[in-house]
Amino acid sequence: MEKNVEISMLCEIYGKLLTKKQLNILEDYYNQDLSLSEIALNNNITRQAVRDILKKGEKKLFEYEKKLKIMKKTLKQKETITQILSEIIKMKTELTDKQYEQILKNIKTKINSLE
Amino acid sequence: MEKNVEISMLCEIYGKLLTKKQLNILEDYYNQDLSLSEIALNNNITRQAVRDILKKGEKKLFEYEKKLKIMKKTLKQKETITQILSEIIKMKTELTDKQYEQILKNIKTKINSLE
Repeated sequence: MEKNVEISMLCEIYGKLLTKKQLNILEDYYNQDLSLSEIALNNNITRQAVRDILKKGEKKLFEYEKKLKIMKKTLKQKETITQILSEIIKMKTELTDKQYEQILKNIKTKINSLE
Repeated sequence: MEKNVEISMLCEIYGKLLTKKQLNILEDYYNQDLSLSEIALNNNITRQAVRDILKKGEKKLFEYEKKLKIMKKTLKQKETITQILSEIIKMKTELTDKQYEQILKNIKTKINSLE
């Protein structure tokens, strides 16, 4: 997984355990693609301070993931859900195509609401 | 949900964020059903100390849940999975009963591995 995707996902899961400042700066950098200089300017701090905050925040995120493994479990779930859908699609059916499509649509909606 | 079930679930999710001592004592009390006196004796501390550790540990668990809501999401997922299974069972099929049962079994195994 690309680092920015990984950090974004970790922020989504564990962000509330960081300070607001850490989270904002991580999101500016990894989600909003702002540069160190832009973030430094917006927050009235030095580029080195931005770098330190990013480093500290990332470290905390990885520590939480190492302990709780929520991201790992979530990724595995998504993979399993894909496998389940493929099993469902294997099912030939006596239903009319329209009925079958409707049920499949319901299932997909429910599975999407899991994520 | 009963309190001991709730605390057990929270321990399973967030236990690694507690100290080993807190986690052990919470598990002894809520999973193993040991009494305060038994735990006090085993750990060579007073009953009041056990009570304090339990209280502090529970508070931390509820704080993590308030921030991250992993238990809430997990419970909602289980409910959704039940709904998905009931949708799948609605499907009439041209497959032989045996084939259908096999696919259903595969799906159930995969869904169980989510939890």
